[in-house]
Amino acid sequence: MPVFLDTTSPDFEPAFQTLLSAKREDSPDVDAVVAQIIEDVRSRGDAAVIELTAKFDRLQLAPGTLAFSAAEIAEAAAQVSQQDRAALELAADRIRAYHEKQMPADHEWTDEVGATLGWRWSAVSAAGLYVPGGLASYPSSVLMNAIPAKVAGVKRLAIAVPTPDGQVNPLVLMAAQLSGVDEIYRIGGAQAIAALAYGTETIAPVDKITGPGNAFVAAAKRRVFGKVGIDMIAGPSEILVIADKDNDPDWIALDLLSQAEHDESAQSILITDDAAFGQTVAQAVEKRLETLQRRAIAGPSWRDFGAVITVRDLDEAAALSNRIAPEHLELCVTDPVGLSTKTIHAGAIFLGQYTPEAIGDYVGGPNHVLPTARSARFSSGLSVMDFLKRTTLSQMTPQALRAIGPAAARLAQSESLEAHGLSVLARLDRLND
Amino acid sequence: MPVFLDTTSPDFEPAFQTLLSAKREDSPDVDAVVAQIIEDVRSRGDAAVIELTAKFDRLQLAPGTLAFSAAEIAEAAAQVSQQDRAALELAADRIRAYHEKQMPADHEWTDEVGATLGWRWSAVSAAGLYVPGGLASYPSSVLMNAIPAKVAGVKRLAIAVPTPDGQVNPLVLMAAQLSGVDEIYRIGGAQAIAALAYGTETIAPVDKITGPGNAFVAAAKRRVFGKVGIDMIAGPSEILVIADKDNDPDWIALDLLSQAEHDESAQSILITDDAAFGQTVAQAVEKRLETLQRRAIAGPSWRDFGAVITVRDLDEAAALSNRIAPEHLELCVTDPVGLSTKTIHAGAIFLGQYTPEAIGDYVGGPNHVLPTARSARFSSGLSVMDFLKRTTLSQMTPQALRAIGPAAARLAQSESLEAHGLSVLARLDRLND
Repeated sequence: MPVFLDTTSPDFEPAFQTLLSAKREDSPDVDAVVAQIIEDVRSRGDAAVIELTAKFDRLQLAPGTLAFSAAEIAEAAAQVSQQDRAALELAADRIRAYHEKQMPADHEWTDEVGATLGWRWSAVSAAGLYVPGGLASYPSSVLMNAIPAKVAGVKRLAIAVPTPDGQVNPLVLMAAQLSGVDEIYRIGGAQAIAALAYGTETIAPVDKITGPGNAFVAAAKRRVFGKVGIDMIAGPSEILVIADKDNDPDWIALDLLSQAEHDESAQSILITDDAAFGQTVAQAVEKRLETLQRRAIAGPSWRDFGAVITVRDLDEAAALSNRIAPEHLELCVTDPVGLSTKTIHAGAIFLGQYTPEAIGDYVGGPNHVLPTARSARFSSGLSVMDFLKRTTLSQMTPQALRAIGPAAARLAQSESLEAHGLSVLARLDRLND
Repeated sequence: MPVFLDTTSPDFEPAFQTLLSAKREDSPDVDAVVAQIIEDVRSRGDAAVIELTAKFDRLQLAPGTLAFSAAEIAEAAAQVSQQDRAALELAADRIRAYHEKQMPADHEWTDEVGATLGWRWSAVSAAGLYVPGGLASYPSSVLMNAIPAKVAGVKRLAIAVPTPDGQVNPLVLMAAQLSGVDEIYRIGGAQAIAALAYGTETIAPVDKITGPGNAFVAAAKRRVFGKVGIDMIAGPSEILVIADKDNDPDWIALDLLSQAEHDESAQSILITDDAAFGQTVAQAVEKRLETLQRRAIAGPSWRDFGAVITVRDLDEAAALSNRIAPEHLELCVTDPVGLSTKTIHAGAIFLGQYTPEAIGDYVGGPNHVLPTARSARFSSGLSVMDFLKRTTLSQMTPQALRAIGPAAARLAQSESLEAHGLSVLARLDRLND
C-alpha cells in the first residue's frame, strides 16, 4: 500500500518529512574496484579494455573491432522496422527543434567608460555518451544525449555501449546514426568511462562525458570528474501528479505507473484536493497492477514509495510540490498554466490532462534527462548548455583604464596583492606621462 | 628558472606534454576528518558548530552570536576608508551591470502540431557563500559570488566567514553589505559547509553553496554535493599571456607575476613569436622579483611552474593556448580580437596591452571565479546561471497528442515500457471514440 497523507491531519508534517527523506537507493560501494579499473585502463590502454570486456561482457574484441564499422551500423539499421524508424525520426526531429531554440547568443557591448565587454560561447571539442546495455539500453536516451551535443556544435561525439555476449539493440545504433554520432564503441562499465576520459591507442580522449549507467559507471564518472566534465549522477525516477477530481482516474493511474515501472526505487506521488478521487486513483493503480507486464517492478515501487496526498486547495499543492522539487510534474487541473507559475522547483512540467509524462520521454521535444532526488531545487535537465562553455571578454582602452584602473589598484593593495596593483599602475604611469 | 620551450625544437612536444600534465597541487587527504565533522554538525547542530569554532578558530560563540548583528556590520563598515569604499562601490556597480546582462530569457512557443513548448528560469531559493578567513579573505571574491546570486534573484543569501581569534576584515563585511547579503555567520571550515547544507537550530539550510576554501572546505563541498548544489572546486590560479615584441616587457612581467603571487602552485606562461622578447620578459620578471612584497610566493611559482614558449607564429600560439585551456588569457598582440576568435578554450580573455588581467580580478565586470586546471575545455566561470535553474514546459492539445502520441507509444513498446505506452494510448482511445 502506498502512504495516504492529508494536510489537515495533525501528524501530516512529520509524515511528509519522512516521505521527503526516504532513502530509496542503496548504491553498492564499488569505488575501490572502479579505481583499479581506471588505473588499469590508464596504464595499459586497449589491452586493459579488451581484457575487461572479455571478463564482464563475455566478448572477445581486438583493437580494430572496438568500434562498430559503418557496415555493421548499416546492417543493424536495416533490421529496424519502418514503424520504429519513423517513430525515432519523429522524436529526433522534435528533440532537435526544441534544443536548437536553446542555443544562447554571444554578446558584446562598449560601456560608458569605453570598456568593451562581453562573452562568447563555444562547444566542447569532443564528448562521450554512455549508453547502458541490456534492459535499460534505451534508444530514446541516445537521442536525448546526442542531439543536444550535436546542436551545440560538438565536433566529435563518441558513444560507448556494452554489448554483453555480442548482443546490441539495433534501435540504439539507429538512434546514434540519426543523431549524427561519429564513433560507437562496444565497451561498457568503468573501463568505458576510463577509456573516454583518458584515451587509449584506438580511442581519443573526450572533454565531457554524459549519460546514465549502473553503480560502476556512476562511480567512474565521479572519479574522472575534473579530468573531464560530467553531467549529473541521476537517481531513480520520480513523478508528482497534481490532479483535481475532473480527471479520468485510470489516466492518472497509468501516469503514476509509468514512473513506477522504471525501477523498484522509483517514486510516484499524487496530490489531489479531493480525497475520494485519490482513493479512486489508488484503486485504478491496483487494477492496472494486476496485468501490467512490469508489475514485479512497478508494484514494489508503488507500495514502498508511492503516496497519495490530500490537500485543502491547489495553493497548498504547489507549496508541497516545491518542497518535493520533483523530476517530473504533471498538472492535471483546470488552469495548469496558472498553477505552473507557482510550482517553481521542478525538472519538467507537463500541463493539462492531454500531456502524459511519457510524451516527454520520447517525442515532446524537451530533454528527458532531468534532476532527481530533490535536486531540481538547484539544477536543470540536460540541454545544449551542457556541451557549451562561455569565455568572458574584456578590452580596455587607455581612457577606460584611466577611469577604472585606480579602483583596481586600490583594491589590490587592500588585498596585499602588490603585483596585481603594479600591473595596472605601470600602465597608468605611462598613460599619465 | 622557468622552463624555456621552442616549438621548432625537436623535443618540444614531450616537453610541452610534461608542462601540461605537471601536478601542481597535493591536496592533503582530509576526507575522513571532514566526514566526521559533517556528521557531528548534522546530529548536534549549533552545539557542534560552536565547539568546532572554539577549537579551530579559538573563538567562543553562543547560538545568538553565530551571526553578525546589523550593528556589528555597520561598525565594521564605518572603519573602511572612503577610498576603499569608493573602489568597492565602483567594482560592485560594474560587476552588477555585467551580470545583469547575463540573465537568460524564458521562452514559449506553439509548434506546427499544436504543442506548446518552452522553458522558464527560476532562482534557487537560498544560497550560501563561503569566504575564507585570514590572508585569503578577499572582499573582491565576496562581490564576485554574491552579486551574481542577487542578480539571479536568490531571496536568501548567507555568508560563512571564519574569524580566527575574532579577527574579521571590515572590507569583507562591507562587500557583503554592498552585495545585499542577508545573513553573515562567523564560522568556517567543514563545519560551516555542513551547517549551510543541513541547517542547524539557528542557520536554515541553503540549496546551493559557492565560494573558495581550503582543503577542508573543498572536501566538505564534495561531500554535501547532491544534498545541495556546489560551484566548481577551484585549483591554483593560472595565466597565459600571448605577446608579440611590441609590448613593454615590464608590463608583461607584472602580469605574469600577478598570478604567481597568489600561490606557490600558481602557473604563469608566456607565449611569444619573438625569442629575444621572451628572454627580456624573463629578465624583467627576475628584476621585479627582487623587490616584490610576495616574492617568497611568486618566486617559487615562477621558477617551478613558469614557462616561456617561443612559437613560429600566432596561429601556433592559438593552437597551444587551446591545449592549455587557461583560466586567464591575455592577448597582447596587434589584432587581439582576431586572435581571440581562435583561442576558444579559455575562462576569460583580456584583449590588448591596456587590459591587464588584474582589471578582471576587480573592476572589469566579468566574474573572476574561473575554471582552472584545463577545465576551460568543458566549463565556464561563475555567472548568474549558477544560481538559476530551468524548468521545461510542455502542453499537448488533443490534436497534438493525436499527431505525436502514436510515435511515443511505439517507442515505449520498443523499450518494453508498457505503462508509458498505455498512458498515451488510453488518452488516444478516448479521443478517437
